[in-house]
Amino acid sequence: MKKNFPLDKVYTLLESGPVIMVSTAWKGRDNVMPMSWHTMIDFDPPLLGCVIGEQSHTFRALKATKECVVNIPTREIAPRALACGDVSGAKVDKFARFGLTPVKASKVKAPLVKECYASLECRLHDARLAGKYNLFILKVVKAWVDTSVKNPATFHHRGGPDFFIAGKTVKLRAKKAV
Amino acid sequence: MKKNFPLDKVYTLLESGPVIMVSTAWKGRDNVMPMSWHTMIDFDPPLLGCVIGEQSHTFRALKATKECVVNIPTREIAPRALACGDVSGAKVDKFARFGLTPVKASKVKAPLVKECYASLECRLHDARLAGKYNLFILKVVKAWVDTSVKNPATFHHRGGPDFFIAGKTVKLRAKKAV
Repeated sequence: MKKNFPLDKVYTLLESGPVIMVSTAWKGRDNVMPMSWHTMIDFDPPLLGCVIGEQSHTFRALKATKECVVNIPTREIAPRALACGDVSGAKVDKFARFGLTPVKASKVKAPLVKECYASLECRLHDARLAGKYNLFILKVVKAWVDTSVKNPATFHHRGGPDFFIAGKTVKLRAKKAV
Repeated sequence: MKKNFPLDKVYTLLESGPVIMVSTAWKGRDNVMPMSWHTMIDFDPPLLGCVIGEQSHTFRALKATKECVVNIPTREIAPRALACGDVSGAKVDKFARFGLTPVKASKVKAPLVKECYASLECRLHDARLAGKYNLFILKVVKAWVDTSVKNPATFHHRGGPDFFIAGKTVKLRAKKAV
C-alpha cells in the first residue's frame, strides 16, 4: 500500500538509476512507457530531468498536458514493464494489454501504476531543452511509496536485453552524506 | 587494462545509474569528485547530462577548461571514491591523499583514474542550463574500458550512507531493444 512520502527524500528513490515507467493521460486515454534516461536535478522541491524520444506518444502527451507520473517498477513486473516499450500508446491501451492498473492521482490527471512500489506525480517545470535534446525538467508535486518494501528490487539497464537487479542495501560510508 | 571502446556503446556503461567520478585538470592540478546525478542524453555521439554542485571545485574547473573525464568505479575502490566527496579539490590533492592514480588522457587534459574500469573523455557540449540547474551537457569524445570486467560491480546511491552493488547481468527481454 503506497503512502505519502516526503518530497525531500525523493532523490533516494531515483538516483540509483532504475528503469522507470512514465504514465500520462491525454485525449481521454491513459498511457505508460518504460525508460532509463533520467537524473535528479534538485532536492527540494525535487526536480528530475527525463529524456523522452520525440517519436513517442508520451513525448506528445507530456508536451500537451504538462503532467505525468514517474512510477518505479521492481523485478516482479519487469517483463510487463519492458513490453510497454514495444508498442505505441497511439495504437494500444497498454494498461489493458499488459495487465497494469491505473489508479487516480491526487494532483495530476496522469494515473499512478498500481503495480509499482513508488509513484511520483510530476508537473512539467521547464521544456527549454525539449526541442534540442528531448530533455524535460519535471517537478515532483506528490510522492507515493510502499515503505514496506525495504530493498526494492529495481532493475537497471545494461544495454540491449541486459539488465541487473539491485542488490541489498549496504553502508559504504561511515557518516551520513549526500 | 583499458582499451578503446566504441562510442555508440557508451550508454551501456551509464544508463544503469552508477556512482561516477568526474576528474578535471585546472591550474596545473588534477582533481576528482564522485557523483550520481547524471543521465544519457543521446547515443552517438554520446551526450551526457551531469549535475555538478556550483560550490564545488569541479564546477569551476569544468566551466573554465570545458573538459573532464567521467570514470566509473567498482566496489573495490568505493570507500576511496566516496571519500573524494568529503574534501575540496581547492585544498587537497585527492589523487595523492586517497591513493588514486592519474593517467594521461588522449584528447583532453583531465586525467583518467587508473583504478576505475571505465573512463570517458568528455568535452563540454552545452552549458545553457549550468547557471539555472548546474546541468552540464557533455560529449564523450573517447572511451576506455577494461572489457575483461564482465559484470562490473558498480555501486549505486540510495541516499545518505546507503548504496547497493550491481548484481549479475540477466536477460529481461527476449529481443534486443534499447
